[in-house]
Amino acid sequence: MLGTQIEAKEHVVNRVPEAGLVLVPGGTLITATPEEGRALALTMARHMIHNIQPDQDVLNAGRPQYAANAVSLMAASQVVAIEFQTIAAANNYWRVSRIG
Amino acid sequence: MLGTQIEAKEHVVNRVPEAGLVLVPGGTLITATPEEGRALALTMARHMIHNIQPDQDVLNAGRPQYAANAVSLMAASQVVAIEFQTIAAANNYWRVSRIG
Amino acid sequence: MLGTQIEAKEHVVNRVPEAGLVLVPGGTLITATPEEGRALALTMARHMIHNIQPDQDVLNAGRPQYAANAVSLMAASQVVAIEFQTIAAANNYWRVSRIG
Amino acid sequence: MLGTQIEAKEHVVNRVPEAGLVLVPGGTLITATPEEGRALALTMARHMIHNIQPDQDVLNAGRPQYAANAVSLMAASQVVAIEFQTIAAANNYWRVSRIG
Amino acid sequence: MLGTQIEAKEHVVNRVPEAGLVLVPGGTLITATPEEGRALALTMARHMIHNIQPDQDVLNAGRPQYAANAVSLMAASQVVAIEFQTIAAANNYWRVSRIG
Amino acid sequence: MLGTQIEAKEHVVNRVPEAGLVLVPGGTLITATPEEGRALALTMARHMIHNIQPDQDVLNAGRPQYAANAVSLMAASQVVAIEFQTIAAANNYWRVSRIG
Repeated sequence: MLGTQIEAKEHVVNRVPEAGLVLVPGGTLITATPEEGRALALTMARHMIHNIQPDQDVLNAGRPQYAANAVSLMAASQVVAIEFQTIAAANNYWRVSRIG
Repeated sequence: MLGTQIEAKEHVVNRVPEAGLVLVPGGTLITATPEEGRALALTMARHMIHNIQPDQDVLNAGRPQYAANAVSLMAASQVVAIEFQTIAAANNYWRVSRIG
Repeated sequence: MLGTQIEAKEHVVNRVPEAGLVLVPGGTLITATPEEGRALALTMARHMIHNIQPDQDVLNAGRPQYAANAVSLMAASQVVAIEFQTIAAANNYWRVSRIG
Repeated sequence: MLGTQIEAKEHVVNRVPEAGLVLVPGGTLITATPEEGRALALTMARHMIHNIQPDQDVLNAGRPQYAANAVSLMAASQVVAIEFQTIAAANNYWRVSRIG
Repeated sequence: MLGTQIEAKEHVVNRVPEAGLVLVPGGTLITATPEEGRALALTMARHMIHNIQPDQDVLNAGRPQYAANAVSLMAASQVVAIEFQTIAAANNYWRVSRIG
Repeated sequence: MLGTQIEAKEHVVNRVPEAGLVLVPGGTLITATPEEGRALALTMARHMIHNIQPDQDVLNAGRPQYAANAVSLMAASQVVAIEFQTIAAANNYWRVSRIG
């Protein structure tokens, strides 16, 4: 489960491109603005899914049913909300941007 | 999943207006009051859903079943509760409003 | 989803009274005691549900099935537990009440 | 939903005793030991369920199916884990008990 | 629900041994290493389940279906992840073990 | 439930290798970069699953259905997001890497 190496080798997959597998794009949790921080939260959530399920065909096949389903949408939103908590704390909640 | 660009181009969508896609409306987590902070949590949750599923027709189609379903309502409430944790921390829980 | 204005206008609803829509009743997260803080957590969770689904008839219709269902009850409890984390932190966990 | 007063009056219920409805038994989050803190987390979770669903007959009816179901058990455990996070923080994680 | 005393007395149960009911084994959240802290998180999650459902026969009966089911496994992992957050904070994240 | 020793001995299992059962690989939550921290979060989540369900055959059997299912994928992502919160806090969010 959660994509162990042994299992991932079982068949040739249409693998997600390398760029989509980087766990922390940009290599830092620090962003200039809350907007960028939230975009990072969304990207980090996406890339984690790619790492757990790196087969692009499976991801594409699952998307229509998933994105129209309220429970899945809420679950996805919740993951992003949790990632954003981490990023917001890392940036001291961009409190200085209040003055800027 | 989570709305990768490649997949979003597959068909022409009745896209959510740009204003509904801003991740942090106002560009800051800082609000004057807890009431405004909680309203921001709800808006941020909505806009994140719009970013994950930007097709307004799919969102409209899913709404009736979703909003009448207790599990979905609780899941939505939970997302907002998590967003509010972040916003409340950013505002030092509006502790000064105790005196004001 | 999550009650966008466009969708809410689709039919005339038996709307939840205004008092039930206030997001932070009292306008502050600060309470005198943990008991009051926990009551506020429950009220804030309720009022958020009212904001997501402001149709009282739909809420009433959903209640019997929901409140007897273990998964829904646990989901509701979890939302309140998260709201209470925020309120407890805002009140420095009422640590002074140890001496009082 | 979440037990609004209007709905709770709809029929006469075999109501949970008053003692089971106190939201924070003892009136404080401060406990002498982690063991007591964790017991408080469990009690607070139980009492919150009683407040959301104060009909003892409904609670008794739901229990057999619930307590044997893995998903419900995990959901209940998760609620207690979240309550315990709050209580542990309130007690500074009982760090002094290391020396005592 | 959540195992109130009244309900637990309804039939004679093959009760989980007392040792499996201790809520915080060792009586402290402080551990020497992250590895021990994570083991404690798993044990605390197990013992909480035992307290909610103290009938060993019911636990044994539910296990096969549960442990092979992805959603249950993820739910169990999530509970442990939350318990570990608390334990890690209690131990200041074992930051000193960086030098040791 | 959650893999108590008594139950695990009931049949001979194709056990996950010892290396996959280490709860905190490397023995510390401290990592050099956010990328490594996030990889650790994923590994810790995997190894916890291995500890809860140490039968490799069951894990392999469950994987295809699980990894193609949106709800399971979101649940797995959420577990990793929670583990990452802990690791990010342990590393003070790698804030120094801002200058480096």
